[in-house]
Amino acid sequence: MRRQVTITPLTKDAFAPFGQVLTTEGSDHFPINGGMTERYHDLADVQLAGENPRAMISIFRGQPYALPLELKMVERHPFGSQAFMPLHQRPFLVTVAPDENGIPGTPQAFITQPGVGINIGKNVWHGVLTALEAEGDFLVVDRGGGGINLEEFFFDEPYLISRKQGALNSG
Amino acid sequence: MRRQVTITPLTKDAFAPFGQVLTTEGSDHFPINGGMTERYHDLADVQLAGENPRAMISIFRGQPYALPLELKMVERHPFGSQAFMPLHQRPFLVTVAPDENGIPGTPQAFITQPGVGINIGKNVWHGVLTALEAEGDFLVVDRGGGGINLEEFFFDEPYLISRKQGALNSG
Repeated sequence: MRRQVTITPLTKDAFAPFGQVLTTEGSDHFPINGGMTERYHDLADVQLAGENPRAMISIFRGQPYALPLELKMVERHPFGSQAFMPLHQRPFLVTVAPDENGIPGTPQAFITQPGVGINIGKNVWHGVLTALEAEGDFLVVDRGGGGINLEEFFFDEPYLISRKQGALNSG
Repeated sequence: MRRQVTITPLTKDAFAPFGQVLTTEGSDHFPINGGMTERYHDLADVQLAGENPRAMISIFRGQPYALPLELKMVERHPFGSQAFMPLHQRPFLVTVAPDENGIPGTPQAFITQPGVGINIGKNVWHGVLTALEAEGDFLVVDRGGGGINLEEFFFDEPYLISRKQGALNSG
Protein backbone atom coordinates (compact mmCIF):
# COMPACT_ATOMS: atom_id res chain seq x y z
CA MET A 1 0.00 0.00 0.00
CA ARG A 2 1.40 3.35 -1.04
CA ARG A 3 1.62 6.01 1.65
CA GLN A 4 -0.68 8.91 0.88
CA VAL A 5 -0.78 12.57 1.84
CA THR A 6 -3.90 14.66 1.26
CA ILE A 7 -3.43 18.27 0.20
CA THR A 8 -5.00 20.88 2.49
CA PRO A 9 -5.37 24.66 2.11
CA LEU A 10 -2.37 26.71 3.21
CA THR A 11 -3.12 28.73 6.35
CA LYS A 12 -0.85 30.75 8.62
CA ASP A 13 -1.64 28.52 11.60
CA ALA A 14 -1.04 25.25 9.79
CA PHE A 15 2.22 26.53 8.28
CA ALA A 16 3.55 28.17 11.45
CA PRO A 17 5.77 25.22 12.48
CA PHE A 18 7.56 25.44 9.11
CA GLY A 19 7.76 29.15 8.31
CA GLN A 20 5.60 32.10 7.31
CA VAL A 21 2.85 32.76 4.77
CA LEU A 22 3.50 35.85 2.63
CA THR A 23 0.15 37.56 2.20
CA THR A 24 -1.60 40.84 2.89
CA GLU A 25 -4.54 38.91 4.40
CA GLY A 26 -4.59 39.46 8.14
CA SER A 27 -1.06 40.93 8.16
CA ASP A 28 0.03 44.09 10.00
CA HIS A 29 0.12 47.15 7.77
CA PHE A 30 0.43 50.90 7.87
CA PRO A 31 0.32 53.75 5.36
CA ILE A 32 3.50 55.31 3.95
CA ASN A 33 4.32 57.79 1.18
CA GLY A 34 1.60 60.23 2.15
CA GLY A 35 -1.01 57.51 2.19
CA MET A 36 -0.41 56.42 -1.41
CA THR A 37 1.12 53.09 -0.35
CA GLU A 38 0.12 50.59 2.31
CA ARG A 39 3.04 48.66 3.76
CA TYR A 40 2.24 45.08 4.84
CA HIS A 41 5.27 44.96 7.01
CA ASP A 42 7.94 42.40 7.75
CA LEU A 43 6.07 39.26 6.76
CA ALA A 44 8.96 36.80 6.96
CA ASP A 45 11.70 35.72 9.29
CA VAL A 46 14.63 35.91 6.86
CA GLN A 47 17.37 33.73 8.35
CA LEU A 48 20.98 34.18 7.23
CA ALA A 49 23.42 31.97 9.13
CA GLY A 50 26.72 30.15 8.61
CA GLU A 51 29.88 31.48 7.01
CA ASN A 52 29.74 34.90 5.30
CA PRO A 53 25.98 34.84 4.86
CA ARG A 54 24.17 37.23 2.53
CA ALA A 55 20.66 37.57 1.17
CA MET A 56 20.11 36.65 -2.47
CA ILE A 57 17.23 37.55 -4.76
CA SER A 58 16.62 35.20 -7.69
CA ILE A 59 13.81 34.27 -10.05
CA PHE A 60 12.85 30.60 -10.33
CA ARG A 61 11.00 29.59 -13.49
CA GLY A 62 9.15 26.41 -12.59
CA GLN A 63 7.63 23.84 -14.91
CA PRO A 64 4.26 22.54 -13.72
CA TYR A 65 3.75 19.21 -11.98
CA ALA A 66 0.67 17.05 -12.39
CA LEU A 67 -1.36 15.82 -9.42
CA PRO A 68 -1.32 13.36 -7.85
CA LEU A 69 2.47 13.43 -7.62
CA GLU A 70 5.00 11.11 -6.10
CA LEU A 71 7.15 12.76 -3.46
CA LYS A 72 10.43 10.91 -3.55
CA MET A 73 12.73 13.44 -1.94
CA VAL A 74 12.78 16.39 0.43
CA GLU A 75 15.62 18.77 1.15
CA ARG A 76 16.60 21.38 3.71
CA HIS A 77 18.96 24.33 3.99
CA PRO A 78 20.82 24.41 7.32
CA PHE A 79 22.06 27.99 6.98
CA GLY A 80 19.10 29.97 5.73
CA SER A 81 15.43 30.45 5.06
CA GLN A 82 14.02 30.40 1.54
CA ALA A 83 11.08 32.53 0.41
CA PHE A 84 8.97 31.85 -2.69
CA MET A 85 6.60 34.51 -4.00
CA PRO A 86 4.62 33.72 -7.15
CA LEU A 87 4.82 36.35 -9.90
CA HIS A 88 1.52 35.06 -11.28
CA GLN A 89 -1.93 34.31 -9.94
CA ARG A 90 -1.94 30.52 -9.95
CA PRO A 91 -1.80 28.34 -6.84
CA PHE A 92 1.25 26.20 -6.19
CA LEU A 93 1.94 23.19 -4.00
CA VAL A 94 3.99 23.44 -0.80
CA THR A 95 5.30 20.24 0.76
CA VAL A 96 7.06 20.22 4.13
CA ALA A 97 7.88 17.65 6.78
CA PRO A 98 8.70 17.80 10.48
CA ASP A 99 12.15 16.67 11.53
CA GLU A 100 12.28 13.48 13.56
CA ASN A 101 15.76 12.86 14.92
CA GLY A 102 17.49 14.17 11.84
CA ILE A 103 15.22 12.65 9.21
CA PRO A 104 11.89 13.85 7.81
CA GLY A 105 8.65 12.57 9.38
CA THR A 106 5.36 12.32 7.53
CA PRO A 107 5.06 15.14 4.97
CA GLN A 108 2.27 17.70 4.86
CA ALA A 109 1.10 19.19 1.59
CA PHE A 110 -0.56 22.60 1.22
CA ILE A 111 -2.12 24.35 -1.73
CA THR A 112 -1.76 28.13 -1.83
CA GLN A 113 -4.33 30.80 -2.64
CA PRO A 114 -3.51 32.92 -5.71
CA GLY A 115 -1.06 35.71 -4.90
CA VAL A 116 0.19 34.08 -1.71
CA GLY A 117 3.81 33.08 -1.05
CA ILE A 118 5.78 31.31 1.66
CA ASN A 119 9.03 31.58 3.57
CA ILE A 120 10.44 28.23 4.65
CA GLY A 121 12.54 28.32 7.79
CA LYS A 122 16.14 27.20 7.81
CA ASN A 123 16.63 23.47 8.30
CA VAL A 124 12.98 22.73 7.56
CA TRP A 125 12.46 19.70 5.31
CA HIS A 126 10.57 20.63 2.14
CA GLY A 127 9.84 19.48 -1.37
CA VAL A 128 11.18 21.34 -4.38
CA LEU A 129 9.31 24.24 -5.98
CA THR A 130 6.09 22.77 -7.33
CA ALA A 131 4.27 24.93 -9.85
CA LEU A 132 0.88 23.69 -10.99
CA GLU A 133 -1.16 24.09 -14.17
CA ALA A 134 1.41 26.12 -16.15
CA GLU A 135 5.00 27.33 -16.15
CA GLY A 136 5.38 30.03 -13.51
CA ASP A 137 7.95 32.49 -12.25
CA PHE A 138 8.63 32.99 -8.54
CA LEU A 139 10.73 35.57 -6.77
CA VAL A 140 13.03 33.74 -4.37
CA VAL A 141 14.85 35.23 -1.39
CA ASP A 142 17.40 32.85 0.05
CA ARG A 143 20.89 32.69 1.50
CA GLY A 144 24.26 32.85 -0.17
CA GLY A 145 27.65 32.36 1.50
CA GLY A 146 30.10 29.66 2.51
CA GLY A 147 29.46 26.07 3.50
CA ILE A 148 27.18 23.32 2.19
CA ASN A 149 23.66 24.73 2.51
CA LEU A 150 21.79 21.72 1.13
CA GLU A 151 20.82 18.38 2.60
CA GLU A 152 18.66 15.91 0.66
CA PHE A 153 16.68 12.93 1.93
CA PHE A 154 15.29 10.23 -0.36
CA PHE A 155 12.35 8.25 1.02
CA ASP A 156 12.59 4.45 0.89
CA GLU A 157 9.04 4.53 -0.43
CA PRO A 158 7.61 7.66 -2.10
CA TYR A 159 4.53 9.42 -0.76
CA LEU A 160 1.57 9.98 -3.05
CA ILE A 161 0.39 13.60 -2.76
CA SER A 162 -3.21 14.02 -3.88
CA ARG A 163 -6.15 16.36 -3.50
CA LYS A 164 -8.49 13.75 -2.07
CA GLN A 165 -7.84 10.88 0.23
CA GLY A 166 -7.67 7.67 -1.71
CA ALA A 167 -8.02 9.43 -5.07
CA LEU A 168 -5.22 7.84 -7.02
CA ASN A 169 -6.14 9.23 -10.40
CA SER A 170 -8.27 12.32 -9.99
CA GLY A 171 -5.56 14.51 -8.44
CA MET B 1 9.85 77.52 -16.56
CA ARG B 2 9.27 74.21 -14.86
CA ARG B 3 12.13 71.72 -14.91
CA GLN B 4 11.22 68.66 -16.91
CA VAL B 5 12.38 65.06 -16.96
CA THR B 6 11.48 62.74 -19.83
CA ILE B 7 10.75 59.12 -19.02
CA THR B 8 12.95 56.54 -20.76
CA PRO B 9 12.76 52.72 -20.88
CA LEU B 10 14.42 50.93 -17.97
CA THR B 11 17.53 49.04 -19.09
CA LYS B 12 20.24 47.31 -17.10
CA ASP B 13 22.92 49.64 -18.45
CA ALA B 14 21.00 52.84 -17.75
CA PHE B 15 20.10 51.70 -14.24
CA ALA B 16 23.54 50.32 -13.33
CA PRO B 17 24.68 53.45 -11.45
CA PHE B 18 21.66 53.16 -9.16
CA GLY B 19 21.14 49.42 -8.64
CA GLN B 20 20.02 46.29 -10.47
CA VAL B 21 17.15 45.31 -12.73
CA LEU B 22 15.34 42.16 -11.60
CA THR B 23 14.51 40.23 -14.74
CA THR B 24 15.14 36.88 -16.39
CA GLU B 25 16.04 38.70 -19.62
CA GLY B 26 19.77 38.36 -20.22
CA SER B 27 20.42 37.11 -16.67
CA ASP B 28 22.60 34.14 -15.72
CA HIS B 29 20.61 30.98 -15.11
CA PHE B 30 21.01 27.25 -14.61
CA PRO B 31 18.69 24.27 -14.16
CA ILE B 32 17.89 22.86 -10.72
CA ASN B 33 15.44 20.28 -9.35
CA GLY B 34 16.15 17.73 -12.04
CA GLY B 35 15.62 20.27 -14.77
CA MET B 36 12.08 21.19 -13.68
CA THR B 37 13.14 24.67 -12.53
CA GLU B 38 15.45 27.24 -14.07
CA ARG B 39 17.21 29.44 -11.51
CA TYR B 40 17.91 33.02 -12.67
CA HIS B 41 20.52 33.45 -10.03
CA ASP B 42 21.48 36.21 -7.65
CA LEU B 43 20.01 39.18 -9.52
CA ALA B 44 20.48 41.82 -6.82
CA ASP B 45 23.14 43.19 -4.53
CA VAL B 46 21.18 43.07 -1.26
CA GLN B 47 22.93 45.49 1.09
CA LEU B 48 22.41 45.21 4.85
CA ALA B 49 24.51 47.67 6.85
CA GLY B 50 24.36 49.68 10.06
CA GLU B 51 23.37 48.47 13.51
CA ASN B 52 21.88 44.96 13.83
CA PRO B 53 20.86 44.74 10.19
CA ARG B 54 18.45 42.11 8.89
CA ALA B 55 16.59 41.48 5.66
CA MET B 56 12.87 42.16 5.64
CA ILE B 57 10.23 40.94 3.18
CA SER B 58 7.08 43.08 2.92
CA ILE B 59 4.29 43.69 0.44
CA PHE B 60 3.63 47.28 -0.67
CA ARG B 61 0.16 47.98 -2.05
CA GLY B 62 0.57 51.09 -4.19
CA GLN B 63 -2.14 53.43 -5.46
CA PRO B 64 -1.56 54.56 -9.05
CA TYR B 65 -0.14 57.95 -9.99
CA ALA B 66 -1.14 59.89 -13.10
CA LEU B 67 1.40 61.14 -15.61
CA PRO B 68 2.79 63.70 -15.95
CA LEU B 69 3.60 63.89 -12.24
CA GLU B 70 5.34 66.45 -10.11
CA LEU B 71 8.38 65.07 -8.31
CA LYS B 72 8.66 67.12 -5.16
CA MET B 73 10.77 64.84 -3.01
CA VAL B 74 13.30 62.04 -3.17
CA GLU B 75 14.60 59.88 -0.35
CA ARG B 76 17.45 57.49 0.37
CA HIS B 77 18.27 54.73 2.82
CA PRO B 78 21.84 54.94 4.14
CA PHE B 79 21.92 51.44 5.61
CA GLY B 80 20.37 49.22 3.00
CA SER B 81 19.18 48.44 -0.50
CA GLN B 82 15.49 48.21 -1.34
CA ALA B 83 14.07 45.85 -3.95
CA PHE B 84 10.65 46.20 -5.59
CA MET B 85 9.18 43.32 -7.58
CA PRO B 86 5.72 43.82 -9.09
CA LEU B 87 3.21 41.05 -8.33
CA HIS B 88 1.25 42.06 -11.42
CA GLN B 89 2.01 42.64 -15.11
CA ARG B 90 1.75 46.42 -15.32
CA PRO B 91 4.71 48.78 -15.77
CA PHE B 92 5.67 51.14 -12.98
CA LEU B 93 7.73 54.30 -12.79
CA VAL B 94 11.21 54.37 -11.27
CA THR B 95 12.74 57.73 -10.38
CA VAL B 96 16.33 58.04 -9.17
CA ALA B 97 18.90 60.82 -8.91
CA PRO B 98 22.69 60.92 -8.67
CA ASP B 99 24.17 62.33 -5.50
CA GLU B 100 25.99 65.64 -5.85
CA ASN B 101 27.82 66.56 -2.69
CA GLY B 102 25.12 65.19 -0.43
CA ILE B 103 22.08 66.41 -2.33
CA PRO B 104 20.29 64.92 -5.34
CA GLY B 105 21.25 66.07 -8.83
CA THR B 106 18.90 66.01 -11.82
CA PRO B 107 16.54 63.02 -11.56
CA GLN B 108 16.17 60.29 -14.14
CA ALA B 109 12.86 58.55 -14.70
CA PHE B 110 12.46 55.04 -16.09
CA ILE B 111 9.44 53.02 -17.09
CA THR B 112 9.63 49.27 -16.52
CA GLN B 113 8.62 46.41 -18.76
CA PRO B 114 5.86 44.17 -17.37
CA GLY B 115 7.21 41.59 -14.93
CA VAL B 116 10.44 43.48 -14.27
CA GLY B 117 11.57 44.74 -10.87
CA ILE B 118 14.42 46.77 -9.45
CA ASN B 119 16.83 46.82 -6.52
CA ILE B 120 17.87 50.32 -5.48
CA GLY B 121 21.31 50.53 -3.88
CA LYS B 122 21.78 51.90 -0.39
CA ASN B 123 22.11 55.65 -0.18
CA VAL B 124 20.76 56.12 -3.73
CA TRP B 125 18.27 58.99 -4.05
CA HIS B 126 14.92 57.76 -5.37
CA GLY B 127 11.27 58.67 -5.60
CA VAL B 128 8.63 56.72 -3.72
CA LEU B 129 6.97 53.63 -5.17
CA THR B 130 5.04 54.81 -8.22
CA ALA B 131 2.42 52.40 -9.49
CA LEU B 132 0.71 53.35 -12.74
CA GLU B 133 -2.72 52.65 -14.23
CA ALA B 134 -4.14 50.68 -11.28
CA GLU B 135 -3.51 49.70 -7.68
CA GLY B 136 -0.68 47.18 -7.57
CA ASP B 137 1.11 44.97 -5.09
CA PHE B 138 4.91 44.73 -4.98
CA LEU B 139 7.14 42.38 -3.02
CA VAL B 140 9.73 44.49 -1.23
CA VAL B 141 13.04 43.30 0.19
CA ASP B 142 14.69 45.91 2.37
CA ARG B 143 16.65 46.37 5.55
CA GLY B 144 15.51 46.34 9.17
CA GLY B 145 17.64 47.15 12.21
CA GLY B 146 18.85 50.04 14.33
CA GLY B 147 19.49 53.65 13.34
CA ILE B 148 17.67 56.17 11.15
CA ASN B 149 17.54 54.54 7.71
CA LEU B 150 15.71 57.35 5.92
CA GLU B 151 16.79 60.69 4.54
CA GLU B 152 14.39 62.91 2.58
CA PHE B 153 15.16 65.81 0.26
CA PHE B 154 12.51 68.29 -0.91
CA PHE B 155 13.28 70.15 -4.13
CA ASP B 156 12.95 73.94 -4.09
CA GLU B 157 11.11 73.56 -7.36
CA PRO B 158 9.45 70.26 -8.34
CA TYR B 159 10.41 68.38 -11.49
CA LEU B 160 7.74 67.51 -14.01
CA ILE B 161 8.10 63.85 -15.03
CA SER B 162 6.46 63.14 -18.38
CA ARG B 163 6.54 60.64 -21.21
CA LYS B 164 7.44 63.18 -23.89
CA GLN B 165 9.64 66.21 -23.78
CA GLY B 166 7.51 69.31 -23.50
CA ALA B 167 4.27 67.34 -23.24
CA LEU B 168 2.66 68.96 -20.24
CA ASN B 169 -0.72 67.32 -20.56
CA SER B 170 -0.42 64.14 -22.52
CA GLY B 171 1.70 62.28 -19.97
